[in-house]
Amino acid sequence: MTRVVAQGTFDILHPGHVHYLQDAADMGDELHVIVARSVNVTHKEPPVVPDEQRREMVAALKPVDQAHLGHPEDIFVPIERIEPDIIALGYDQHHDDEQLEAALSARGIDCDIRRASPLEAEAADRLLSTGRIIDRIVDERSE
Amino acid sequence: MTRVVAQGTFDILHPGHVHYLQDAADMGDELHVIVARSVNVTHKEPPVVPDEQRREMVAALKPVDQAHLGHPEDIFVPIERIEPDIIALGYDQHHDDEQLEAALSARGIDCDIRRASPLEAEAADRLLSTGRIIDRIVDERSE
Repeated sequence: MTRVVAQGTFDILHPGHVHYLQDAADMGDELHVIVARSVNVTHKEPPVVPDEQRREMVAALKPVDQAHLGHPEDIFVPIERIEPDIIALGYDQHHDDEQLEAALSARGIDCDIRRASPLEAEAADRLLSTGRIIDRIVDERSE
Repeated sequence: MTRVVAQGTFDILHPGHVHYLQDAADMGDELHVIVARSVNVTHKEPPVVPDEQRREMVAALKPVDQAHLGHPEDIFVPIERIEPDIIALGYDQHHDDEQLEAALSARGIDCDIRRASPLEAEAADRLLSTGRIIDRIVDERSE
């Protein structure tokens, strides 16, 4: 049984999220997703959708076996609990794979780090990402 | 084999959609969802997310077996093709059940019409619906 962990903010769901999670699920037998809490999203604008609603929506997606909220102080706590064999990063997630590997080792967590594939070009072109959905709403619905 | 059809706009997915689709799926063995094309959404603001992306996201949800885009001119065409045993309406969808039943009969479509249950009160209170997500984006992200 190969257990895979994926993680992200998953603010307003779009096909890029589904592609990432399907790719992650295909790496093993059981996919757990860690959904970042709003308080821990510091590298971009905080999500629009509340923590528990984002967790619930990720859990409703076909590739996902279980969705968990992240730990507010220590990102490694849910990983220690889930004990994954593989951590699947999104192709564009800004993590330094080697640094992450070292941090996991230091915590005694032994798992592979892999990258999901990007969406194919045609799908990426027509994708309305969370950011583009928000921009469109601001453009069309604001007075 | 009981085939169920659900339908809606499904603009920005939220737990109310998942509840409706799970309820519909529980009425039978196979759930088909008809996703309204933007050109046919005339009773409220047009959706933000394009037709095909909305269809793709509905298809990614666990309760859904197949998601179809509606017919641009004749809403009964996909229903004739799917041949459902049950049409499951959302608890708050503005359809007159008897009028719909008569229209289906006139087209020779023989199926039951049922209503999905509402979300329980506590879940409904904390729900960020498509409209509330859009309002929040307009409030927080517009200059």
